[in-house]
Amino acid sequence: MLKRMLKVAVLGLGTVGSGVPAILQEQKDKIEQITGMKIAIVKALVRDIEVKKALAQKYHFQLVPDIKDIVQDPEIDVVVELIGGIEQARIFIKEALNAYKHVVSANKDLIATYGEELTTLAKEQNVSFYYEAAVAGGIPILRTLSSSLSADGIDEVLGIVNGTTNYMLTQMAQKGATYAEALVAAQELGFAEADPTNDVDGIDAAYKMVILSAFAYGMRISLDDVKIQGIRMLQSQDVKMANSLDYVFKLIGCSRKFDEGIDVTVAPALVHKNHQLANVNNEMNAVFVKSAGIGESMYYGPGAGSLPTAASVVADLVAIAQNVQYKVLGIPFNIYKKPTKLAADSQVINQYYFHFEVLDGKKQFEQLRSLFAKAQIKIKEMIDYDTQVIVLTYEASAKIKSKFLKSIESTSDFKLISVYNIFD
Amino acid sequence: MLKRMLKVAVLGLGTVGSGVPAILQEQKDKIEQITGMKIAIVKALVRDIEVKKALAQKYHFQLVPDIKDIVQDPEIDVVVELIGGIEQARIFIKEALNAYKHVVSANKDLIATYGEELTTLAKEQNVSFYYEAAVAGGIPILRTLSSSLSADGIDEVLGIVNGTTNYMLTQMAQKGATYAEALVAAQELGFAEADPTNDVDGIDAAYKMVILSAFAYGMRISLDDVKIQGIRMLQSQDVKMANSLDYVFKLIGCSRKFDEGIDVTVAPALVHKNHQLANVNNEMNAVFVKSAGIGESMYYGPGAGSLPTAASVVADLVAIAQNVQYKVLGIPFNIYKKPTKLAADSQVINQYYFHFEVLDGKKQFEQLRSLFAKAQIKIKEMIDYDTQVIVLTYEASAKIKSKFLKSIESTSDFKLISVYNIFD
Repeated sequence: MLKRMLKVAVLGLGTVGSGVPAILQEQKDKIEQITGMKIAIVKALVRDIEVKKALAQKYHFQLVPDIKDIVQDPEIDVVVELIGGIEQARIFIKEALNAYKHVVSANKDLIATYGEELTTLAKEQNVSFYYEAAVAGGIPILRTLSSSLSADGIDEVLGIVNGTTNYMLTQMAQKGATYAEALVAAQELGFAEADPTNDVDGIDAAYKMVILSAFAYGMRISLDDVKIQGIRMLQSQDVKMANSLDYVFKLIGCSRKFDEGIDVTVAPALVHKNHQLANVNNEMNAVFVKSAGIGESMYYGPGAGSLPTAASVVADLVAIAQNVQYKVLGIPFNIYKKPTKLAADSQVINQYYFHFEVLDGKKQFEQLRSLFAKAQIKIKEMIDYDTQVIVLTYEASAKIKSKFLKSIESTSDFKLISVYNIFD
Repeated sequence: MLKRMLKVAVLGLGTVGSGVPAILQEQKDKIEQITGMKIAIVKALVRDIEVKKALAQKYHFQLVPDIKDIVQDPEIDVVVELIGGIEQARIFIKEALNAYKHVVSANKDLIATYGEELTTLAKEQNVSFYYEAAVAGGIPILRTLSSSLSADGIDEVLGIVNGTTNYMLTQMAQKGATYAEALVAAQELGFAEADPTNDVDGIDAAYKMVILSAFAYGMRISLDDVKIQGIRMLQSQDVKMANSLDYVFKLIGCSRKFDEGIDVTVAPALVHKNHQLANVNNEMNAVFVKSAGIGESMYYGPGAGSLPTAASVVADLVAIAQNVQYKVLGIPFNIYKKPTKLAADSQVINQYYFHFEVLDGKKQFEQLRSLFAKAQIKIKEMIDYDTQVIVLTYEASAKIKSKFLKSIESTSDFKLISVYNIFD
């Protein structure tokens, strides 16, 4: 006889946690039709039971204070981890997996750090472990990479995967706001936290790129393998200059394959206004993929928020219900696996935007040109205004760029203000 | 013991058919790793064996002239139908399903017309029947709707799903080309056929909207249920006017839910430049979805072409290999099913763009305003230039619009030149 009910326990009833019962309730007929089962939240782990009583009553589930009330309950099929943080969540998920519960998580930090360990454990226990909501909230990018794009050869994944910084950069580009003004605006709207470090320094985006890289290339890297530069130092004058050259600044998570090695970075970059990513504005997210078969494709949607993120969690629950129904057990979310190989700096190719200050009013452009020529970086465009010079280049390797930057340090005529990658 | 090889026969070796062996060859290691199987084309049905000999030799498969050589071959697991057309393809697919072969097809006309019959037969035979490539070529939209978005409540699906017309409209908007000039340009690039009827009259897009509607709402409609208007009559002056108002014309396949009924149309429409679909240019396609949980999401990519479409076919083959591996049999591509209900004209709501010619030089704007007021259509903006008047309105039902159009016919001061929907 088929199992008619999938019983779920939720750990944490914050923003996302309170969206999950709402969606399960609203879509219950559809879910029952496509899975052949009811999916019901029966328990939720919360710190303060009093605070969440109304929610629990509305959706008819029980509030419990101890993880044991969940992992030791043989009735529970799935544990949804929404408490965030790394260590506590890791312990809870391991306990759940060890008790043969399927697990859904929206915890990017945890998955980027311990994804491999948890995936291995889930496989050993013959249960499912899904985390669609961990990357780009409502955008179904992980399941798309692991199913529809699974047989395509991916070369490039560019992501606008942090809504806070994208909102700030949109304000800077469209309204001429400074970094500080944009941050205040984001904080007022609740897009940025009081301490915005994780977002503005690119760490949040880097975690997501670690996960996207695992799905795109089968390679497991750690946060230390990602070159990270945040938006804190981005100057209004560079934003304006980019605009006049038909580019917009975006915080781009960039994961690319060069030969057999991959290179993963997070940094502000100039994106040409004709590029699909240039039109991803405010708090929205998008993941742009280049692959051998499909070519260019892009997946756009909200990167955060209660309902969008909860919708991804519910999609995972539906997938688990179908696995249970069809008796498909212990298949990893991402099956693709290759030995990790990082690309060398000599392989990583980019176009660059250089911004120099002219020192002592000496506009020694011939000298600057000869430094570029000596470094074998071809200049596409050189714009001279006031005491500043902007140089846009053709493609050159990261190694060549580094060498060139050293050569600039030794000249007394120009000072490097900034350098960014360009995506055309 | 696990089956180690999935044997495929391809019907037709045209543009897409020749892309499939190329992708299977190029991605063979990845495919073997994620499916645990080799996927190999072993036979292809072609009309003229001589013409395709080189391709067959290159990829080591056998050319056969008769469908019986395929459906009666017990070694063949999957039949990939790429011959196009409706009746012949329908017969071949039924023979294949009756012989317990899994089937993959890229044939939108067939699936929009006989999808239900073939899906039912596949289910009875306990085999898989997939057709990701039938809608929007390389964009993995059907599998996304049937998996990741399956538990979300979809309210609106807007598609730019015909590359030919999108290329033409881009030429008209960006280069000021007339319809006739844009058509010639599209034909020269191979984007439009000598007889462009299917594309420019919106029929190709309508077939795709039939399939998308089935996935989005579980409702099966036929081509007759789609209100179709092509781009043949679109005037350059409307394109220019739209541009000056910050809109671009796109051929929008629009499938929306009003209460419990759906309304499906294909027509040129004004899309605001801030809308994600406005930036989908040239031959590219995109599907924009509004749903209760996720909110707004968009899926962008190439709508046609050998490799993109073949990549979707290969994604279907990989899904079948996994079904075989995990012993998941006869699950329809789209499980969601609801009784079909079409929305009434009084329920279907739009904003409109009206273009009138002023007859006899009489600018009786008060009369025009009172006709709108009488019809209860609120005017948002009225632009008077020369002998023409443009009126942009707030939302009104299709029923109210029809009634209004009749009232205009009876006045001798204004003649309706065109009316289009607006998407903000």
